[in-house]
Amino acid sequence: MKLNKMQLLFFLSLLFVLPACNQKSTQSDDVAPLPSWNDGATKTAILDYVNDVTNAESKNYIKISERIATFDNDGNLWSEQPAYFQLFFAIDRVKALASEHPEWKTEQPFKAVLDNDMNELMKHGEHGLIKIVMATHAGNTTDEFESIVKEWLANAKHPRFNRPYTDLVYQPMLELIKYLQENDFKTFIVSGGGIEFMRPWVEEVYGIPKDQVIGSSIKTEYDYNNGNPVIKRLPELDFIDDKEGKPEGINRFIGRKPVFASGNSDGDLQMMRWAASNKLKSFMLYVHHTDAEREWAYDRDSHIGRLDKGLDEANDKGWTVIDMKKDWKVIYPFDLK
Amino acid sequence: MKLNKMQLLFFLSLLFVLPACNQKSTQSDDVAPLPSWNDGATKTAILDYVNDVTNAESKNYIKISERIATFDNDGNLWSEQPAYFQLFFAIDRVKALASEHPEWKTEQPFKAVLDNDMNELMKHGEHGLIKIVMATHAGNTTDEFESIVKEWLANAKHPRFNRPYTDLVYQPMLELIKYLQENDFKTFIVSGGGIEFMRPWVEEVYGIPKDQVIGSSIKTEYDYNNGNPVIKRLPELDFIDDKEGKPEGINRFIGRKPVFASGNSDGDLQMMRWAASNKLKSFMLYVHHTDAEREWAYDRDSHIGRLDKGLDEANDKGWTVIDMKKDWKVIYPFDLK
Repeated sequence: MKLNKMQLLFFLSLLFVLPACNQKSTQSDDVAPLPSWNDGATKTAILDYVNDVTNAESKNYIKISERIATFDNDGNLWSEQPAYFQLFFAIDRVKALASEHPEWKTEQPFKAVLDNDMNELMKHGEHGLIKIVMATHAGNTTDEFESIVKEWLANAKHPRFNRPYTDLVYQPMLELIKYLQENDFKTFIVSGGGIEFMRPWVEEVYGIPKDQVIGSSIKTEYDYNNGNPVIKRLPELDFIDDKEGKPEGINRFIGRKPVFASGNSDGDLQMMRWAASNKLKSFMLYVHHTDAEREWAYDRDSHIGRLDKGLDEANDKGWTVIDMKKDWKVIYPFDLK
Repeated sequence: MKLNKMQLLFFLSLLFVLPACNQKSTQSDDVAPLPSWNDGATKTAILDYVNDVTNAESKNYIKISERIATFDNDGNLWSEQPAYFQLFFAIDRVKALASEHPEWKTEQPFKAVLDNDMNELMKHGEHGLIKIVMATHAGNTTDEFESIVKEWLANAKHPRFNRPYTDLVYQPMLELIKYLQENDFKTFIVSGGGIEFMRPWVEEVYGIPKDQVIGSSIKTEYDYNNGNPVIKRLPELDFIDDKEGKPEGINRFIGRKPVFASGNSDGDLQMMRWAASNKLKSFMLYVHHTDAEREWAYDRDSHIGRLDKGLDEANDKGWTVIDMKKDWKVIYPFDLK
């Protein structure tokens, strides 16, 4: 084909104009995905999966509406040691509210908290923790609770790193969330943590909208309040989003099975199995905490985030297991600096 | 400025190329929004609101993450007469299951259903309806229930129009949902109807994703089922997404107040008040059923979709009320043909 000068100019002009209209995908192409992940089997498995299921020519192609990715939060998107960060919040709230509750000086498990006696606190087990959660998370409105969480996060510091808790999110997981979003996956948090404890900060920290957060909850009650309606938080458990609760919560909130599920403990195993049973090609990803130096190392014997049955099942079924020490160049965003 | 031939050609070429890259917004600009709405105060109020809050220069500008729009379903997005369509589903299910339940021949309210005796059925009130819902909506898995709903919708016909129930969606509301989505509103359904009754068809019919549906629900239970996990539907009420339940459900599923709320009955009033209490500029829209010829005319005295207090409050507070007969050029998509 021979082009005249006009035709040639027209085609040349396309070269300048078209890239400018397609800026979004150009931007994502500029930087290779998952820059904080070391090259190796884990990173390759993730990239291969996403390339496969987003390729319209592939037999494994997944249409956009089915691209649901679910992420546990504690120990999966941010650290969970030496205790779930929400427990530090509850402890700080007990201390802040103690002057209004003189009875706590002698009443367990509150006395243990006020005495900084973690061993005593742990003796009161789940029942004790629920008492603390109800005393610190209920009895206010949703707006008030959101403000309390935000204020706490702005001021509290993690005991080991002496930084805000939201600094302790995993840089490689932030990149994974972004990479999935750029490939039209809808990303959800599915956490045993409190739904209203997470929502005030997840948008800013993870880029995940509030309505894409599933978590444990207490009951609530709408009150017209003479024309200034509020939703009151009641001291009664509503839903525990852990173990069997995870697929139940996913069904209730999302209404379809994930094709991508990421967790780090046996509490995530039911969610993993739920995703694995998807007729569409699915991807199951476990974070294995193997880095005592930069983060923590724990699995089968840990009280927090125990990964035992899940690790066996991941190995049996060929699910992908992140070896934190080996697979991640950096742990936290502040390590990049 | 004088252009040489090359420059001129370059600029001319832009005229052909740029519109092609910006296809999405060009498409929406091509057709004026809300084509099935008659010009008048209602349409103008909607357009003015959206133009105002999406204008970055306006003091009422709302950032994208806060653009939450909630829609009731029955009587708001599709018809609800002569009875909620989900009741027709339940009745057809009772008939389909009757051979497995010989006891229903003599047991109310099932006998009334099998005898097509609606007066007798209504005598059994809410308690009777719950019995029918539990017998027809529970005792299966979520996958099975989804198939049952889809099969019913593919075969059942509305008694007046002799068309599939999903044909009886409101064309002007489809346009409103699309218009809001094009303006970066996230659109949710917030319905007293069953969440799992709506999810199988809302994506196709309304363009609203399954995970943006809030509705009434029964309890569920995850079952590993020897490696083929299922979620079982249990015959126990979990949540009624009506009246006070609407703001509670919105808080649970979305985690923030809507800025746009649309309903048609007193059961939506709490949702309207919840949106009206938003500090951001909000828009409350009631559908008033005024068209006995093309649809139905009912409000203050209706057993289904009663709009009484809500109509007074809308008038008092200056909320927008759609006069179906006056404001809508067509009711259903099939009227367009």
